Amino acid sequence: MADKPTREDRFSFGLWTVGWRANDPFGDATRAALDPAEAVRRLSELGAWGITFHDDDLIPFGSDAAARDGHIGRFKQALEETGLVVPMVTTNLFGHPIFKDGALTSNDRSVRRFALRKVMRNMDLAAELGASTYVLWGGREGSETDAAKDVAAALDRYREGVDTLAQYSIDQGYGLRFAIEPKPNEPRGDILLPTIGHVLSFVSTLEHHELVGVNPEVGHEQMAGLNFVHGIGQALWQGKLFHIDLNGQKGPRYDQDLVFGHGDLLSAFFLVDLLEHGGYDGPRHFDYKPLRTEDTDGVWASAAANMRTYLLLKERAAAFRADPEVQAALEASRVPELSQPTLAPGESVAAFRADRTAFEDFDVEAVARRGYGYVDLAQLALEHLVGARG
Amino acid sequence: MADKPTREDRFSFGLWTVGWRANDPFGDATRAALDPAEAVRRLSELGAWGITFHDDDLIPFGSDAAARDGHIGRFKQALEETGLVVPMVTTNLFGHPIFKDGALTSNDRSVRRFALRKVMRNMDLAAELGASTYVLWGGREGSETDAAKDVAAALDRYREGVDTLAQYSIDQGYGLRFAIEPKPNEPRGDILLPTIGHVLSFVSTLEHHELVGVNPEVGHEQMAGLNFVHGIGQALWQGKLFHIDLNGQKGPRYDQDLVFGHGDLLSAFFLVDLLEHGGYDGPRHFDYKPLRTEDTDGVWASAAANMRTYLLLKERAAAFRADPEVQAALEASRVPELSQPTLAPGESVAAFRADRTAFEDFDVEAVARRGYGYVDLAQLALEHLVGARG
Amino acid sequence: MADKPTREDRFSFGLWTVGWRANDPFGDATRAALDPAEAVRRLSELGAWGITFHDDDLIPFGSDAAARDGHIGRFKQALEETGLVVPMVTTNLFGHPIFKDGALTSNDRSVRRFALRKVMRNMDLAAELGASTYVLWGGREGSETDAAKDVAAALDRYREGVDTLAQYSIDQGYGLRFAIEPKPNEPRGDILLPTIGHVLSFVSTLEHHELVGVNPEVGHEQMAGLNFVHGIGQALWQGKLFHIDLNGQKGPRYDQDLVFGHGDLLSAFFLVDLLEHGGYDGPRHFDYKPLRTEDTDGVWASAAANMRTYLLLKERAAAFRADPEVQAALEASRVPELSQPTLAPGESVAAFRADRTAFEDFDVEAVARRGYGYVDLAQLALEHLVGARG
Amino acid sequence: MADKPTREDRFSFGLWTVGWRANDPFGDATRAALDPAEAVRRLSELGAWGITFHDDDLIPFGSDAAARDGHIGRFKQALEETGLVVPMVTTNLFGHPIFKDGALTSNDRSVRRFALRKVMRNMDLAAELGASTYVLWGGREGSETDAAKDVAAALDRYREGVDTLAQYSIDQGYGLRFAIEPKPNEPRGDILLPTIGHVLSFVSTLEHHELVGVNPEVGHEQMAGLNFVHGIGQALWQGKLFHIDLNGQKGPRYDQDLVFGHGDLLSAFFLVDLLEHGGYDGPRHFDYKPLRTEDTDGVWASAAANMRTYLLLKERAAAFRADPEVQAALEASRVPELSQPTLAPGESVAAFRADRTAFEDFDVEAVARRGYGYVDLAQLALEHLVGARG
Repeated sequence: MADKPTREDRFSFGLWTVGWRANDPFGDATRAALDPAEAVRRLSELGAWGITFHDDDLIPFGSDAAARDGHIGRFKQALEETGLVVPMVTTNLFGHPIFKDGALTSNDRSVRRFALRKVMRNMDLAAELGASTYVLWGGREGSETDAAKDVAAALDRYREGVDTLAQYSIDQGYGLRFAIEPKPNEPRGDILLPTIGHVLSFVSTLEHHELVGVNPEVGHEQMAGLNFVHGIGQALWQGKLFHIDLNGQKGPRYDQDLVFGHGDLLSAFFLVDLLEHGGYDGPRHFDYKPLRTEDTDGVWASAAANMRTYLLLKERAAAFRADPEVQAALEASRVPELSQPTLAPGESVAAFRADRTAFEDFDVEAVARRGYGYVDLAQLALEHLVGARG
Repeated sequence: MADKPTREDRFSFGLWTVGWRANDPFGDATRAALDPAEAVRRLSELGAWGITFHDDDLIPFGSDAAARDGHIGRFKQALEETGLVVPMVTTNLFGHPIFKDGALTSNDRSVRRFALRKVMRNMDLAAELGASTYVLWGGREGSETDAAKDVAAALDRYREGVDTLAQYSIDQGYGLRFAIEPKPNEPRGDILLPTIGHVLSFVSTLEHHELVGVNPEVGHEQMAGLNFVHGIGQALWQGKLFHIDLNGQKGPRYDQDLVFGHGDLLSAFFLVDLLEHGGYDGPRHFDYKPLRTEDTDGVWASAAANMRTYLLLKERAAAFRADPEVQAALEASRVPELSQPTLAPGESVAAFRADRTAFEDFDVEAVARRGYGYVDLAQLALEHLVGARG
Repeated sequence: MADKPTREDRFSFGLWTVGWRANDPFGDATRAALDPAEAVRRLSELGAWGITFHDDDLIPFGSDAAARDGHIGRFKQALEETGLVVPMVTTNLFGHPIFKDGALTSNDRSVRRFALRKVMRNMDLAAELGASTYVLWGGREGSETDAAKDVAAALDRYREGVDTLAQYSIDQGYGLRFAIEPKPNEPRGDILLPTIGHVLSFVSTLEHHELVGVNPEVGHEQMAGLNFVHGIGQALWQGKLFHIDLNGQKGPRYDQDLVFGHGDLLSAFFLVDLLEHGGYDGPRHFDYKPLRTEDTDGVWASAAANMRTYLLLKERAAAFRADPEVQAALEASRVPELSQPTLAPGESVAAFRADRTAFEDFDVEAVARRGYGYVDLAQLALEHLVGARG
Repeated sequence: MADKPTREDRFSFGLWTVGWRANDPFGDATRAALDPAEAVRRLSELGAWGITFHDDDLIPFGSDAAARDGHIGRFKQALEETGLVVPMVTTNLFGHPIFKDGALTSNDRSVRRFALRKVMRNMDLAAELGASTYVLWGGREGSETDAAKDVAAALDRYREGVDTLAQYSIDQGYGLRFAIEPKPNEPRGDILLPTIGHVLSFVSTLEHHELVGVNPEVGHEQMAGLNFVHGIGQALWQGKLFHIDLNGQKGPRYDQDLVFGHGDLLSAFFLVDLLEHGGYDGPRHFDYKPLRTEDTDGVWASAAANMRTYLLLKERAAAFRADPEVQAALEASRVPELSQPTLAPGESVAAFRADRTAFEDFDVEAVARRGYGYVDLAQLALEHLVGARG
């Protein structure tokens, strides 16, 4: 049985997750508002390590300075009492009608200016609370008709916006790293920078590209039918996995934000394996929504379920890795051989072209007949996942 | 009525499109093999400008040198007779069983070496035929189980492979530019570099990144539910739209390769508008499959249909752009305002932060009430598309 | 140019469509509440014929008797003034938290009883207003985990519920016909009776099956990637197309409720053709949402756009049907031949088995070579749609 | 650890599964042909109980009488030697070009007649081999453009075809039951009768409807994003689950035919639970394809993996059901309460309307606050699935 979560596991939750009141496009809220300080205390008791928030989660939009200070003060007190940290902060640039056409890429310049200032103000708070990562989710940056948005201009403004924010962090000495969160659609018909790949390539065009990475969310990539493990693999390979949002989703449909593992469980298993063994050392951040059918007990049960599932999968992945039969199967499938460069050390293109064993004398048919044994690997993984090879 | 296609329209077709014999996963070929020279002649008659091919389309895998020369000779003769050009060439790295686990990222190093040599050999022919673009579609670079593929190692090998090929082009003075073609899945369960974004970000890591761009295909992005026009917009914005594959698709399902426009017609309209007015000057390349129900007459009818639809949409897009009512609606939707930088010329971050009109004194509620008028734009586009505003 | 809409076109709108305040899962309302009487008057001016509603659209949940009478009275007055009719009424069984686990199939029996009574109460009003169709959308009848719902028990209760309501209509002499509206998911993870087919087969098990049909919505079927025209074709064939919801959707993703035609335009063209020529004589009901970016002007512009698009497509479909070239192409594709029975009149199974020309002496290869000419049909349709064959 | 498969488990395989030579739309066969008798012997050794086939799997299309007898004879001998049974037989109405526009609904009447005769001929063999179920997969019954197919006429012909076949079985005393297999698309752009629901409703219109049910396939429903467990639940509820095809799929994309469980594992768990405890007593039939990367050893390993996974899930489901904590959680979620009729025994509609506790005096807000505890159920299921509650 997996151990209980500890601070060392670095589990964090968004304030908006356990605090979601469960209103959806077709129905009203089913739960009362949750006091942020209460969220901090309950998550701490459950073994979480960190808490994150959008500005408006903590400080209702339009609060005056006194109210704002009050909200922040109560939150900080709860952090101090519990020892919970704030590893990441983000901005709500999607809830208020002012952002109905986007924030950094709204056609309305005054909205873009307001949005940048709203982010900056919250960066000040992020720095004050010791956050190291600032997430940018451009959920309203998009369109429903291609006539409405000049994509090149939009990307120019997106770049201008992110570069301005990075410059502000540098100027202030905040030391923040930014993580852009991709999503293909919802709430806009189509959202700009829809996948991990689009974000990574956009980042490569930035002035302060070294400060900006990606914050992928399980469900967002799976809404496009993409392999999340492959996406995380590429983000890690490019040194850009600055943060991650864990949850569950059942393929292309509305954004479900299920408990981690309650969607594609095999993918969750391989994801935990990659996070634990692939060089990621950031927070394990859950961005999920407790089902609308649940009351407050269900909220906390679901928070615990995320962590418990992660730990169970971590245990299963470790056993999978340690199993000599798995090692043999990986070898038989020539998985390690992919780490060997295709050209020999020092081999020039000319030398390679002169190697008749590579082409002219290569026994294509014989090599083509060799099987790769991937079904063995897949089945070994499944059996470890279901605890049948303990 | 749209004019007939001319060479100036720069329409090109893959030899494998009109030449597809219509075998699919559940059925045998329904059409006889098509002689490549015949394809050249018929496409020329229909008004096409260029023809493209995979090595194995022209020269069956395993042909000896004499057979190879014969195939190439007959093809070149047809090109000379007709004046058709070969703007792009590509390699078949997916058909033969040797590539069943991929080519540049096969776990088997000998397969990777064979694949690179196969590409190089065909680059020689591409250069000889005057092609300027070399497409790389890694259709088998992927996996069905995450246990089978070390993504970081695979991307290392992918980078090594593309860099090696670019170096070869430089060494030989071929002057080729490479265009990587993304696809999310099929024939592999999941394919590496699944979208335009993933390709663009991968390219940014290459040694010879300036020589490598993307070859997006309408249907491949739409298989992931992504907005193709947005994707092309980003590729153009990054200066990386080196080639394009036009066809039709009906959302996430198997790769349909329908005639251009026979899928999402509104998207095709906005795509043509962007290609014609967004700075793309490369070939309009059709990568489609004539329906399996069609005989040879249907093959040529479908080839003509691709070009005819493109020209009709071009005409409709021009009328849309020229319509004063559309211009007024774009203005009303503040579309041109997105081209204005968010910060004023010379405005420093400090000055921006000191601008109380941008934040503290900004009338959020008043601005939030303003409508964007996007439904007018969408409806104007639809009415132009259906010829109701000629 | 298509004429303006008239009452004869039988266009109807849900009160909840133009009245949608544009709150979504990630954002607050962007528009003020719309007075139902105002909706009646504006829709009438635009040329609509009917208006429909959920009980709670007209009478806020929990209104007392006096308030209820007031709401109904003002609505009736507007109907009288304008001549707009109420062809269909439905119940909100999804908005209030009481229905968070469903209504007719909630695990909680007291909720199921409350739901049935809520429907009955609104059936009284429907009858009073002269509606002939009562729609049942079970948007909360479903689950997020298969452990939560005993599907057989749920279908038992669903059947009990619909049979009880049908009995009530019979008892009261209301003469209502019921139309169940399928949807695959959202707001529940998976919804029972997810497609047209599932509803039709469920109806076949009902005691009062003759009173119950289907109310398909364009976007709901397309969220499952299904061909809406095929679905409508089957519903008509089974005599069960009792009502229809027209709108637009871009494939498997969240429920977009775009303006009719602003999604898959080719499908919309064939749909209008089928509705106009396939024997459907019910309302053309629009169930869409004005984009959240729009203000009140945009609301009415979008309402008009639905009707205008329908009329344009109707015009295009009529021209398509009337074109002799299309008639010839249909003949060449043997489309009419499908209406000939496969067995000859009076041919027994024994006689059929004895017909050697059907099998033993059938020239399979010769017939297999014949093309079907479907690309011609598809292209003719596209060209008529874009007004290129006026 | 789950036991090895035995005949009592009633596992069956299609001859076309282990015999698939692994050609796909983009590549050639990677494996040699498999002798059907060898398939029988190997499957028997692995613990399977039955084998199924399309006519052309056993007897190549166009074989003369002598060749046909030879193929059948060798197959029967292997059956006798091993004791394997033939519980189901089906017809290939999709592979040969003659069926390129469908079989029972081809626009060409001569093709429809040929198709019916081809089925009848194979029904004779099915009866001879003792099969009780005859599967009809109409993989080519569909279209790529809505202009090509008159859906009402197609359904008329479909009904005529199935009724004719049922009559033939009755006339011959074969005692066969028919099971129609739905699929949304591939190889046709859209296939008629795309889901379980569409088949069930079609069946309700048949003359011999009592002889016809459904043969659902895991992947086919999941290609439409539908919940397979819900679909099976409805088919069982309507008494129409005559057969089932088990495999794996990763959502809307091409038909993957993965090993059972190698797709959506949580759904597979709930499916096995339903099949084992929901009243299904037919074969557990695997309709999968061994990955194209595998050699012959991989073929047999994958066949074994299907059965092993089923048995593991059966074991996990039994433990889930037996766990008192699960029983308590089901009770807390009021799952059993859904089996109570909504109206009391003997309660009339009038009496129900007079029950003020059901509506007027019902404490909506209090009941609405109660949580359903579904997250507990979901997590308990997950933990049983991963063997963490052994």
